[in-house]
Amino acid sequence: MRTFDTELTVRYGETDKMGVVHHSNYLLWFELGRTGLLREAGYAYSDLERGGFLLPVLEYNCKFHKGAEYDDSVLVNTVVSDIRSRAVTFHYECWRNDTLLCTGWTRHVCVDHDNNIQRIPDGVVEACRAYLRDGG
Amino acid sequence: MRTFDTELTVRYGETDKMGVVHHSNYLLWFELGRTGLLREAGYAYSDLERGGFLLPVLEYNCKFHKGAEYDDSVLVNTVVSDIRSRAVTFHYECWRNDTLLCTGWTRHVCVDHDNNIQRIPDGVVEACRAYLRDGG
Amino acid sequence: MRTFDTELTVRYGETDKMGVVHHSNYLLWFELGRTGLLREAGYAYSDLERGGFLLPVLEYNCKFHKGAEYDDSVLVNTVVSDIRSRAVTFHYECWRNDTLLCTGWTRHVCVDHDNNIQRIPDGVVEACRAYLRDGG
Amino acid sequence: MRTFDTELTVRYGETDKMGVVHHSNYLLWFELGRTGLLREAGYAYSDLERGGFLLPVLEYNCKFHKGAEYDDSVLVNTVVSDIRSRAVTFHYECWRNDTLLCTGWTRHVCVDHDNNIQRIPDGVVEACRAYLRDGG
Repeated sequence: MRTFDTELTVRYGETDKMGVVHHSNYLLWFELGRTGLLREAGYAYSDLERGGFLLPVLEYNCKFHKGAEYDDSVLVNTVVSDIRSRAVTFHYECWRNDTLLCTGWTRHVCVDHDNNIQRIPDGVVEACRAYLRDGG
Repeated sequence: MRTFDTELTVRYGETDKMGVVHHSNYLLWFELGRTGLLREAGYAYSDLERGGFLLPVLEYNCKFHKGAEYDDSVLVNTVVSDIRSRAVTFHYECWRNDTLLCTGWTRHVCVDHDNNIQRIPDGVVEACRAYLRDGG
Repeated sequence: MRTFDTELTVRYGETDKMGVVHHSNYLLWFELGRTGLLREAGYAYSDLERGGFLLPVLEYNCKFHKGAEYDDSVLVNTVVSDIRSRAVTFHYECWRNDTLLCTGWTRHVCVDHDNNIQRIPDGVVEACRAYLRDGG
Repeated sequence: MRTFDTELTVRYGETDKMGVVHHSNYLLWFELGRTGLLREAGYAYSDLERGGFLLPVLEYNCKFHKGAEYDDSVLVNTVVSDIRSRAVTFHYECWRNDTLLCTGWTRHVCVDHDNNIQRIPDGVVEACRAYLRDGG
């Protein structure tokens, strides 16, 4: 099983007056995670879109342990936790060194530009399987 | 049981290239919902913060049915689905006329400025009970 | 000369760790201002877009006097400071009661969906003239 | 004269329904540029803040030539265009390969945590001079 790691530095504009990252921004980081995983798997999301396959978010969830702060280096670890013919779920962990900041997941359905549900292309399903979490 | 309704108009900058609202922005709308509920209940969140009571988000969830579009009028309906001595959960529905766009919830813990867990002030607990969903 | 006023309440997620609104968010407020002005003038921007007329931002500027804070009521006052056959400039002031928070402007060119420069429809030019700042 | 270059990949959530990056997001990229420049110069902005020196934005400007698209690699080139005892101006260019996307600037004043104007620490002024644009 492979995992995809990407690193980012917290932007000032991502914090709020509580002094830590506003909770909505983690979804943008998750987006970096799955985009990077798909690119590494050989299927850049921008190419999928141009080919008529979109993966809108059906549901998301995020659970916090510690808040990320401005200028922190954060590692986003992404795996696939479920892959079916028409839907895929990604699972994420955000880490600052050895501290787990949060865990989350996003579930996506595959649609075309007219919003009709489509089968995920076979190659994408196959490539995602390499990142499938054990028992996922 | 009371519910709190607030209305907003979708901003252009809240959309993404899929043509609908980016999924992260619903969390900002949920924030308008619970902020408005607390104010109506007699406890403006800004006053709570000044009094040393913060309500950071511990976990959130959102499930989508339809995407909101630019310039849509969206009604956010907020209730309390759980209230305990140190934690509170709000539940949200976003509607465009008769169309349910999404449902979500956010769970919060009460802390002070040093991030130590605190009891939610009695008055706030009492006031929130008026918005407690049946069977919530 | 008419002006267009719109009011908003500052969202928690719009603040940053300095405790005031992050400077980038004023551009979203300006967007509410010109969108509202165009709607009041009889030309909803969403209709213009559907008709093939887009108004991307060519240049923007914002100068700050005071920072807006969470939960503040902010009034955005919008006028047209220049209108030509293919470009329009809007000018904005953000106020909290009698305190001027910032002034700014955005300059837009009219293009079609293929990004070719177009004449702004005559009716829009005419309607915008009613909001033209004296000596603008 | 030194310049500071930093590279970023455009996030999906940074685009809007026009299909390109929403104009407000360039300010977040500028923030990455000046933050990186200061860190390279030996003065991490997070350290300056902890030391009681903040650099809020007094005014900003951005002029667009081409729109950045999702998944583009964008290089942000940052220099200092003016440095005085209490204020500093940074100048930015965003490039996609050989295409200039936009140019912009932000002017900052130095204040303490009570919002009183302060002299920028001598070491910071000195370090910034190395990045001062010719004739800046």
